[in-house]
Amino acid sequence: LTLVEKKTQATKATEMILIATFVDSPYNLGGLSRVAEIFGCSALHISDLGVLKDSAFTSVSVTSESNLNIVQTPPPILKGFLRSKRAEGWTILGVEQTDSSIVLGDEKAPKLPKKVVIVMGTEKTGIPPDVLVECDSCVEIKQWGLTRSLNVQTAAAAVLYEWRREWGDGL
Amino acid sequence: LTLVEKKTQATKATEMILIATFVDSPYNLGGLSRVAEIFGCSALHISDLGVLKDSAFTSVSVTSESNLNIVQTPPPILKGFLRSKRAEGWTILGVEQTDSSIVLGDEKAPKLPKKVVIVMGTEKTGIPPDVLVECDSCVEIKQWGLTRSLNVQTAAAAVLYEWRREWGDGL
Repeated sequence: LTLVEKKTQATKATEMILIATFVDSPYNLGGLSRVAEIFGCSALHISDLGVLKDSAFTSVSVTSESNLNIVQTPPPILKGFLRSKRAEGWTILGVEQTDSSIVLGDEKAPKLPKKVVIVMGTEKTGIPPDVLVECDSCVEIKQWGLTRSLNVQTAAAAVLYEWRREWGDGL
Repeated sequence: LTLVEKKTQATKATEMILIATFVDSPYNLGGLSRVAEIFGCSALHISDLGVLKDSAFTSVSVTSESNLNIVQTPPPILKGFLRSKRAEGWTILGVEQTDSSIVLGDEKAPKLPKKVVIVMGTEKTGIPPDVLVECDSCVEIKQWGLTRSLNVQTAAAAVLYEWRREWGDGL
């Protein structure tokens, strides 16, 4: 009985969608698959589903991709997808440092949007400007060190962790 | 002036020490160096400093190791180190699922210890039993998926993020 309940809980979709269209590294994509599945995203969007067969991907994803809805959404169709999700009532949230970005977990800031599409940028240059303007808001992870930025999978893990901390089961 | 202030802030040591003695993969150790430096740990302990020259390490660490106090603490001397830190007033916190572990970020649980030594386990089997008994308490990251566990660098990132969320500058 306990096992059945666990499975029911585990496969329940939430209102978090993760966009990794701009992430190129199979290793990072494998890591994103793992964190997206563990924190219960309803879908992960990537540029090319071919990466699922890459050994660098599978070495990090540890079969998480079998339990996750992974969708092929290359750059040319991403903006249309984001607009359609917004029309359905979702909030588009970029993970990016901008002059108006909110600091993740800041107790003075509002909670993360509940029904949210989370957009990760490229490893080197972040979210392209033409997609950044499609974001309703941006969130940044406060850093205390000198190193430029978090790896994309650890940045995504912090955001997904924080969403779960704020919303729990999301019900 | 802004840059000077930023540097002063960035190099300030905090009361977080990260123990990665049981982590073998140079890739994971590079990732741990990066998150430890970014979230301002005062030290990272690893089994063998030789890994700092490994190309898999440096590809992920992005020179974070230059700004971080990395100490060689192999398994045989770890227990003595943990005991000496406890005697100095530090709390030893294992990142591990146990029958008494606290869920990270649970609003009903106490805050993370402020002056804390955070112990990560091996990638496959977690914290060895003889070291687990040296931990004052354990914290686990609640998971919603079917995948066994988070990668060690994403798990560490969630714990360090949460410490900073709770304690801020730690002053």
